[in-house]
Amino acid sequence: MSFIYNRTVRFSDTDAAGVVYFANVLSICHEAYEASLEALGINLKAFFTNPSIAFPIVHANVDFLRPMYCGDELRVRLIPQKLSVDKFEITYEIVITDVLVAKAITRHVCIDVNSRSKQELSGEIMQWLETNRKEAEGAERRKSREVM
Amino acid sequence: MSFIYNRTVRFSDTDAAGVVYFANVLSICHEAYEASLEALGINLKAFFTNPSIAFPIVHANVDFLRPMYCGDELRVRLIPQKLSVDKFEITYEIVITDVLVAKAITRHVCIDVNSRSKQELSGEIMQWLETNRKEAEGAERRKSREVM
Amino acid sequence: MSFIYNRTVRFSDTDAAGVVYFANVLSICHEAYEASLEALGINLKAFFTNPSIAFPIVHANVDFLRPMYCGDELRVRLIPQKLSVDKFEITYEIVITDVLVAKAITRHVCIDVNSRSKQELSGEIMQWLETNRKEAEGAERRKSREVM
Amino acid sequence: MSFIYNRTVRFSDTDAAGVVYFANVLSICHEAYEASLEALGINLKAFFTNPSIAFPIVHANVDFLRPMYCGDELRVRLIPQKLSVDKFEITYEIVITDVLVAKAITRHVCIDVNSRSKQELSGEIMQWLETNRKEAEGAERRKSREVM
Repeated sequence: MSFIYNRTVRFSDTDAAGVVYFANVLSICHEAYEASLEALGINLKAFFTNPSIAFPIVHANVDFLRPMYCGDELRVRLIPQKLSVDKFEITYEIVITDVLVAKAITRHVCIDVNSRSKQELSGEIMQWLETNRKEAEGAERRKSREVM
Repeated sequence: MSFIYNRTVRFSDTDAAGVVYFANVLSICHEAYEASLEALGINLKAFFTNPSIAFPIVHANVDFLRPMYCGDELRVRLIPQKLSVDKFEITYEIVITDVLVAKAITRHVCIDVNSRSKQELSGEIMQWLETNRKEAEGAERRKSREVM
Repeated sequence: MSFIYNRTVRFSDTDAAGVVYFANVLSICHEAYEASLEALGINLKAFFTNPSIAFPIVHANVDFLRPMYCGDELRVRLIPQKLSVDKFEITYEIVITDVLVAKAITRHVCIDVNSRSKQELSGEIMQWLETNRKEAEGAERRKSREVM
Repeated sequence: MSFIYNRTVRFSDTDAAGVVYFANVLSICHEAYEASLEALGINLKAFFTNPSIAFPIVHANVDFLRPMYCGDELRVRLIPQKLSVDKFEITYEIVITDVLVAKAITRHVCIDVNSRSKQELSGEIMQWLETNRKEAEGAERRKSREVM
């Protein structure tokens, strides 16, 4: 099974239009990424606060299909994929009671923080990619079987 | 027992000092308020989006005792109290593994949204105050007994 | 000339990596959109708070070329374009002392807020598109001449 | 004259109640603090990103007198005051066309970042305190004269 992050929409996520402010949807996706790292036993403080290796986002995109309201129970499905020796991307699908409400991608590059030069994906992140990729593939296979 | 809201510190909560940005601590407290309303079966969308009666915050204060880092597991204890016929306040205690890291208060007044005039606390919020007050008192009594 | 929005990076924009949190770059772009509406005399409160016609974002994407730090003076250039009878998009280029640090797009659809059904772009937004398109084209022409 | 920070309320500042989200008022105050440091020639990147000396907030409070809407033009008046050898506080008054809409305080302590132990206020911040205190006192005197 893919990694799923459950998240209730909070009042601070919303704007004067009464729905989630568009950029906050990407923050919610990033929370799912953090939760999936944590689920693998990765120490978030060490990973995100003054690390020697980091994975800054070089590209993000998001499609908004339906508005999200305060109190909505979101399920964020996360599917990461290795792109190259120093790059990976994550696809996020946000669902409310089985209806897709948003879809997003974040693309990350591995860098040495001091020099800010690219470097190969670390063992830690390779393991996370491996774990979540397999799980996502499993989900895809199950989905295909259900369709047949 | 008092209502407790568990919340992992997210990367978006932090600032360039490497810790939770001060104003975000109040947002985390407000999330605890939302979660406690939800726990009583109150519909958050109806409560916060275009309601006829609202409970805007007229005062907030917060003391920061220790820094909070990305990945920290916060426990937010919420203790509401009725102040007058149209006002209540909530005390929040944020704890990381039994150490108090921040303490905050939000004070709310009940208003008719269209006229923006004060009005008596609604039955819904009175029930929420009653439920959480009892629970908080129970916790106080238990604490006193432990001390004795 | 294209519309330019000047914006200093604030501490609250940053995260524990010491740079602007990725999703906040899109918020800064949205501020530029708001400033350009305001520059045309559009009342922002009426436009964004309980309007009958709204322009929700259906797609956004952003490329991050360089990190942005607290105190950095950003210049956000805004180039809107009509896409169809009910849709437009805005391209944003964020520059620090002539170096492009990020590029983003937001795509908006015009809706009737009550029915949430699509409708033709309003006269107000058509005038804004017209004004800013001409200005952007002027900038493009000048750029071409400089190149030749 | 006191330092004044002019700030338009942005869509991202608002919530589903249609007004500025309470905790964001404190962020706007912090922006005024940053702008006043900048006005004195202090480098914000050096001051806020990986400094050896920092001024974390140990207490904040805010009173909300009137709602603030998207597009509102805020004037934030900043009055800092030294409290002790290692502590200062800032009072903020937020005004819309001469009407006070919110009042806030942030209290800061000077620390050595590595040891996180308190230390005397730096020369830089003492100069900032001196400059802004005098200006605020001047404003107070003028106000008194007007009243008499």
